[in-house]
Amino acid sequence: MTQNIYDDPRFFENYSRLVRSQQGLAGAPEWPALRAMLPAMVGLTVVDLGCGYGWFSRWAREAGAASVLGLDVSEKMLERARAGSNDPALSYARADLEQIDLPAATFDLAYSSLAFHYIDNLRALFATVHRALVPGGRLVFSIEHPVFMAPRQPGWSVDAQGRRQWPLDSYQREGPRVTNWLADGVVKQHRTLGTLLNALIDAGFTIAHVDEWGPSDADLAARPELAEEIERPMMLLVSATR
Amino acid sequence: MTQNIYDDPRFFENYSRLVRSQQGLAGAPEWPALRAMLPAMVGLTVVDLGCGYGWFSRWAREAGAASVLGLDVSEKMLERARAGSNDPALSYARADLEQIDLPAATFDLAYSSLAFHYIDNLRALFATVHRALVPGGRLVFSIEHPVFMAPRQPGWSVDAQGRRQWPLDSYQREGPRVTNWLADGVVKQHRTLGTLLNALIDAGFTIAHVDEWGPSDADLAARPELAEEIERPMMLLVSATR
Repeated sequence: MTQNIYDDPRFFENYSRLVRSQQGLAGAPEWPALRAMLPAMVGLTVVDLGCGYGWFSRWAREAGAASVLGLDVSEKMLERARAGSNDPALSYARADLEQIDLPAATFDLAYSSLAFHYIDNLRALFATVHRALVPGGRLVFSIEHPVFMAPRQPGWSVDAQGRRQWPLDSYQREGPRVTNWLADGVVKQHRTLGTLLNALIDAGFTIAHVDEWGPSDADLAARPELAEEIERPMMLLVSATR
Repeated sequence: MTQNIYDDPRFFENYSRLVRSQQGLAGAPEWPALRAMLPAMVGLTVVDLGCGYGWFSRWAREAGAASVLGLDVSEKMLERARAGSNDPALSYARADLEQIDLPAATFDLAYSSLAFHYIDNLRALFATVHRALVPGGRLVFSIEHPVFMAPRQPGWSVDAQGRRQWPLDSYQREGPRVTNWLADGVVKQHRTLGTLLNALIDAGFTIAHVDEWGPSDADLAARPELAEEIERPMMLLVSATR
């Protein structure tokens, strides 16, 4: 089973203080790019893999989705998600994406935000999602970028001219990375971008769009602290079709 | 027109001393991975984009290709390529990949080794190659990896424990990079991996395989100096189908 760090009290408390936890989609700078990769939502049957507080699930319904199923491994997240809506076409369930079972040919859209980097057996998950989509259905997800995840000791350094750099190492060494983000001992799974894309292709997906998200000029004007995202990719957004 | 650095006498002299120039495909550690991405060669009509000394063009004929057209912008490279063979099914021509014209629906395979990072208008080239392939035809190429190309001052640094790191910056700043590799002022075109893959997809290609090449244990046993390639990806190998 996936490490369920979100039910760790300290992690959960710190997580709930993040801008993206408090402001939802509006607090996630990559959201406009991710939204641009989504199909028209009206009438779609949607599954939200790692739904967290349910921000996306609720947005999907507001954007016209016929029904949304939000899945998460964390009881605490699901509790918050359920408290956020009494929409009968919006349902939440506990599920470990590491060993999830989904009904075949059911969903028009599978969505996932920043959850897949916790998954060890991503090939099995991609096979399950592919089977669960209708033909022509779409998987749209964000994941921590391999360049962000790879280093033994991730963090910025500064060169002789005082300019920020991201010292990369261990890129080809795939496997777990343990970091202390919001709590100690958070385990993520590093794989190269090639491995990730090939896993999608091997599961039967066609790659439709790949976005190594970086801030626009408007993003930088609104949130100058995003300037560091110019130096190295932190997030990867992918759209793939069944 | 692309900078024709290969006809710079100093560059050409230094280039001709590289292991990969003297040993050909056997001197290129990524060749086995690239070869594994190629279709069965027997009977294929092949174009080699940036053929250099013609190592691949000759290999393709030996592997059974019906005909091979090698194209390069450098007269010096073509001279060496022509001197290496008198095979009538192997032809060479001068062409600037930046503004190349190719006959429609002609080739089963378009191949390119470490040439595309010199190209500014890669979208136009991909459109031309797509049109020149038969339906189901394949484009297989290697290119310098964006992580390798991005930094202002590419080079290794060493951390406090004496471990090698690749300080990355400017990843999201696409555009020319001027380096002093074999000669001063070599101009390459940095684009993100996402931009590269989307350009292929937008040209009509389906991404078939993406390999951010790294050394195998056997590679490391044979050439210990390849160990640094574990820390960051230097080359990107891509296979795409029309």
